[in-house]
Amino acid sequence: MVERFARRIPEPTVVRLPVYQRALLGLSAAGVTTVSSAELAGATGVNAAKVRKDLSHLGTYGTPGTGYDVKFLLGQIRRELGLDEEWQVVIVGIGHLGHALAHSQRFSTENFRTVALFDVDPAKIGEEVSGLPVLHLSELPEVVASAGRTIGVIACPAGAAQDVCDRLVEAGVGAILNFAPTILTVTRPVLLRQVDFSVELQVLSFYVEHPEAIAGLAGASRSKDESRLEL
Amino acid sequence: MVERFARRIPEPTVVRLPVYQRALLGLSAAGVTTVSSAELAGATGVNAAKVRKDLSHLGTYGTPGTGYDVKFLLGQIRRELGLDEEWQVVIVGIGHLGHALAHSQRFSTENFRTVALFDVDPAKIGEEVSGLPVLHLSELPEVVASAGRTIGVIACPAGAAQDVCDRLVEAGVGAILNFAPTILTVTRPVLLRQVDFSVELQVLSFYVEHPEAIAGLAGASRSKDESRLEL
Repeated sequence: MVERFARRIPEPTVVRLPVYQRALLGLSAAGVTTVSSAELAGATGVNAAKVRKDLSHLGTYGTPGTGYDVKFLLGQIRRELGLDEEWQVVIVGIGHLGHALAHSQRFSTENFRTVALFDVDPAKIGEEVSGLPVLHLSELPEVVASAGRTIGVIACPAGAAQDVCDRLVEAGVGAILNFAPTILTVTRPVLLRQVDFSVELQVLSFYVEHPEAIAGLAGASRSKDESRLEL
Repeated sequence: MVERFARRIPEPTVVRLPVYQRALLGLSAAGVTTVSSAELAGATGVNAAKVRKDLSHLGTYGTPGTGYDVKFLLGQIRRELGLDEEWQVVIVGIGHLGHALAHSQRFSTENFRTVALFDVDPAKIGEEVSGLPVLHLSELPEVVASAGRTIGVIACPAGAAQDVCDRLVEAGVGAILNFAPTILTVTRPVLLRQVDFSVELQVLSFYVEHPEAIAGLAGASRSKDESRLEL
């Protein structure tokens, strides 16, 4: 417990851990056993100094001249991200966005598994999407009760989002990811994260207007030939 | 110019400016002319001290006992976000995600206007989505040339994303928002931002595993009754 309180990982680093993880999984699949910070930088678009700084927050410094052990590093990142145990994902609202999320390869990795889809539209109930039948929202409590650790994803229209949120909390999900364009409140402490596409557009607009701010930006990088400028 | 270099706005603040903007637009529409940091905190889920700190980066401190002038603050945020001039948005890839984005009220605000949709599937060309006809990707250069400042949104499958990215850069868009699960490179400096849904899941997982880290998290807030815990 002391250790946990001692190392607090900065949020920009937390957001980059999944990016390193994905690159490392690719290297591991290709049979690569060690990787340098420069190679990880090349694979992720994060500069090498930042890679070393980020990984130092995990207590990992690599071996000079050899680099990092890929498997060991993967294990450390998994543990930090709380992925030693799989998360079950349930998606509520199977319109276009729900379909897109259900089909997303990113939503069904070894760490996250989409296990159920819900809607209230009779025309959608029973439809099969990405191998799963769409269930009526009334079945949510049983599904969550029988699943393990569950993340509830809200992909319904804004007007229905608070009701769906209440039902997810009531059903006992461990966390909620809300795509509906509305601010939600929960009746007991549940981790809630809001995804807002327009924020992405506005952040882009800010940096187009303030190119001088990019240099100081956490996570921004310029490749050596200045041809890539990524936030 | 000096002023711009003098005030560098931290990225977590940049990400919250659109959130304040939305709350302020709601207040303005309701006829409210001044707002306290506590009221803005209540409307956004950001705590009041952080609201004041964020707005101080805009050079705005409010009037003690009265608060902030809503219209003035909206003007300052618009200017910071580079929204004095409208952005045109073009979406490439009209599958489920493209449909969801085209229909999103967040992608068609007074600051961003979705002006064109592109695909290469003959079955989709000509289809009308949210009032816009789906055009063939070959028409991209003319559309971007005749639009003003343009953000290109990549919503196509990963395999086609680099080609679409090249075409957007070639057509002269000002920035690119990539939803495809792949790392892109651009042939000349264009601002590129990657949206990855699985990062959202992984960040949630991290904070469920490390609740002690939430207290130090930029953007996290607990409401007074501890009933909301929002990242």
